[in-house]
Amino acid sequence: MTKIKKTISDIIGKNNWIDGKDAQKYYRDWLNINGTIPMGVAFPANTNDVSEIVKVCSHENIEIIPQGGNTGLVGASVPSQGKSIIVSFEKMHKIIKLDVDSGLMVVEAGVILADVHAALNETNLEFPMHLGSEGSARIGGLVATNAGGNQAFRFGMMTDLVLGLEVVLPDGQVFEGVREVQKDNSGYQLRSLFCGSEGTLGLITKVVLKLVPKSTNVETGLVGFKDLNTAVKFCRDFSCQFHNFLMAIEFFTDFGVDLILKLSTDNDFPVKDRASIYVLFELGATSSLLDIRKPLIDYLSSNLVSSELVDCIVANSESQRRKIWFFREEQPEGQRLIGEQIKNDISVPIGSIEEFITRAIKICSEVNPNLRINYFGHMGDGNIHFNISPPEGNAAFTEKERGLSQKIAALANEMNGSFAAEHGIGRTKKVIYNELRGEAERDLRLKIKKSIDNQNIFNKGVIN
Amino acid sequence: MTKIKKTISDIIGKNNWIDGKDAQKYYRDWLNINGTIPMGVAFPANTNDVSEIVKVCSHENIEIIPQGGNTGLVGASVPSQGKSIIVSFEKMHKIIKLDVDSGLMVVEAGVILADVHAALNETNLEFPMHLGSEGSARIGGLVATNAGGNQAFRFGMMTDLVLGLEVVLPDGQVFEGVREVQKDNSGYQLRSLFCGSEGTLGLITKVVLKLVPKSTNVETGLVGFKDLNTAVKFCRDFSCQFHNFLMAIEFFTDFGVDLILKLSTDNDFPVKDRASIYVLFELGATSSLLDIRKPLIDYLSSNLVSSELVDCIVANSESQRRKIWFFREEQPEGQRLIGEQIKNDISVPIGSIEEFITRAIKICSEVNPNLRINYFGHMGDGNIHFNISPPEGNAAFTEKERGLSQKIAALANEMNGSFAAEHGIGRTKKVIYNELRGEAERDLRLKIKKSIDNQNIFNKGVIN
Repeated sequence: MTKIKKTISDIIGKNNWIDGKDAQKYYRDWLNINGTIPMGVAFPANTNDVSEIVKVCSHENIEIIPQGGNTGLVGASVPSQGKSIIVSFEKMHKIIKLDVDSGLMVVEAGVILADVHAALNETNLEFPMHLGSEGSARIGGLVATNAGGNQAFRFGMMTDLVLGLEVVLPDGQVFEGVREVQKDNSGYQLRSLFCGSEGTLGLITKVVLKLVPKSTNVETGLVGFKDLNTAVKFCRDFSCQFHNFLMAIEFFTDFGVDLILKLSTDNDFPVKDRASIYVLFELGATSSLLDIRKPLIDYLSSNLVSSELVDCIVANSESQRRKIWFFREEQPEGQRLIGEQIKNDISVPIGSIEEFITRAIKICSEVNPNLRINYFGHMGDGNIHFNISPPEGNAAFTEKERGLSQKIAALANEMNGSFAAEHGIGRTKKVIYNELRGEAERDLRLKIKKSIDNQNIFNKGVIN
Repeated sequence: MTKIKKTISDIIGKNNWIDGKDAQKYYRDWLNINGTIPMGVAFPANTNDVSEIVKVCSHENIEIIPQGGNTGLVGASVPSQGKSIIVSFEKMHKIIKLDVDSGLMVVEAGVILADVHAALNETNLEFPMHLGSEGSARIGGLVATNAGGNQAFRFGMMTDLVLGLEVVLPDGQVFEGVREVQKDNSGYQLRSLFCGSEGTLGLITKVVLKLVPKSTNVETGLVGFKDLNTAVKFCRDFSCQFHNFLMAIEFFTDFGVDLILKLSTDNDFPVKDRASIYVLFELGATSSLLDIRKPLIDYLSSNLVSSELVDCIVANSESQRRKIWFFREEQPEGQRLIGEQIKNDISVPIGSIEEFITRAIKICSEVNPNLRINYFGHMGDGNIHFNISPPEGNAAFTEKERGLSQKIAALANEMNGSFAAEHGIGRTKKVIYNELRGEAERDLRLKIKKSIDNQNIFNKGVIN
């Protein structure tokens, strides 16, 4: 161990190494469920450092776990065995280039998502990736997990927003794919292969991000419905009528609202009449030539009259807008605070959202009718976080209740959806993956893994 | 040869086989440049047929060339050697499912793109892939080439529009990835790997297409500019102001207009005052609640006053709209009729379009100032078809002129763009690919190819 520490310290400098035992912040994950002590954490300063570290580890057969903000939810950013080092990209956080005319940005892998947003403040462009962890999630990790977020139904997932990549491969060679164009059909889409590879195929060092014109004219609203059915019907029509402006269409439940109200007594819910299901929408126009407020208010008013809506509000200020979003984005945190939970990161065809939720609730209540279910997510792409907490007063789940994870996953699969919509497979969803995905499919991934990382140096046991 | 014919005929029936010598339509490509006589052409009726054919060919070591509409431009859909069969998907043209609520469609690989559009006529949805060859290009081929088209800057390329795939692998096994969700991070994005694999990794048999709300309110216009610089500046501002509605923003030259006028005496150019560069735009709104005509006319009027625009027209009828598009879409056909040509399918960062064209013209005129250059393409994503015809009166290029292809490609590469934006590598761009893409990158693709098709049964010599 001392030898490795010395060899790597010689490459990157002593200050850029932490011994494993002192690195709990790095080797345990956000949920504090996964992670064992590695040999250490290395903080490279540039691509060359990364390449040299990889060569050393490859020679010594030491596993490398690449790490961005360590906000992942499937145990893929922390070690599962001790003969390993974490390569943290914290110190590679330069914004290399911002090309406004071309609508793109070249960044190092360690740049935090919120810093990408901030760097665009003075421009007429934005990077359309928004998720709860944007204050700590780093670009390399977002690429490696193919992050989705709130605007994925409109602008796509990370794979759709990455124009180019630089990646250090298991032999230390560098794939130089820092291209600045959307259209590049010069062979297999390697950029897409690394998006969602969860650190198993290469260490991402630079990323070219695609930017879009900024919405200067934004309307955010929250609408309450008496039940899921009316909410889904509303969303279908609304999404079509306002398709051109729709930036986000999210949902959560009244149970979720209570979770947030418990977070702090400062929180007050912006809609007066409580309902069963809430839909959050955000419309945006890039130009003051385009009026969205009037058609929006007209539309909501006529729907209010037809009494499909319990109540609704359109934000009148940025602080009101933030408050609305707070109730959606703090759902994971609100539920984390009430104890153990089973997180199901599901997607189903958007026409089947209601059917999925109805059937999933039934499956749960057959096991225990007192389980506390908090479902919320992205109405625009059918991505539902169907999360379960034990009954009030119970600290933990029973064994049978834990089995629900598998059942909910199987239901999504049966409905032509996914049991790993946004968060990936990592180490924690491998059992489900092996059960629900066919042999031909898994075999394809394993072949690809072996062809690129034959020695299994990168993130051993993740996905494959 | 007789043996193979018999074995395959026994699987798919005699009527679904054509001997190679009788199959010129299938073994020569659209440009009539590539293709030699194969053993025959097989027309499977379903996935099982495809799988059985693959098993036979794999056993006998016979190359398979998958073929959709045979509209490819890089020689990837026709054989380059005789120990081969073409698998045509012409007879697999069923639309299996149209799910309006989920905004998706499941089709067999042989469905023609225009038939997808037609099937959506009575719905409020559309499939946002439009290109010149849509009357003959088939979905499987569009996936395998990762087609781009006119709306790629907005809705993405084929890889962004494919939710799921079914693919027959080189051992005859079937990858069952017919999922119906955008968000599926259950391991490497195999759907994206097959998008752009040019028939080298698997035979695509079924595709789940993502649909979007239909624009019911469409405005199409054509604007003339005195030079490229003013056209590019206009596009930059216009794209931002009308971003929410922008469906297409294309361009072509006055030389290109003459090409189309020669196609038939019936064609008349819709803009009165001829200019140097023309920009075609199309705006679309999905709802009658949203007015686009008034802000558009206001915008164009104020720009006309500032005399940046030579002339412009906004279509007043569907036939006028079609006429405008005709001048853009028939550019390839117009140029094909004036003889041999060098087709350069380039993309550059959109901020560098003007620089690229200026430098590329200079490179050409240094070789021969009388070359006829016809550049046109997609302003929204920097995809430029920079096509060259020999000087007036010359039937063919000189050797030195042919070398321009390499030089133009190298220029795009130097500018962080691509020399194969939409059309792929196929067989005809391999020399350029080997020269311009680094060893680490090519090696990655070769490793993937070998890991999946170790015997090199599928489209030998394409890409790798």
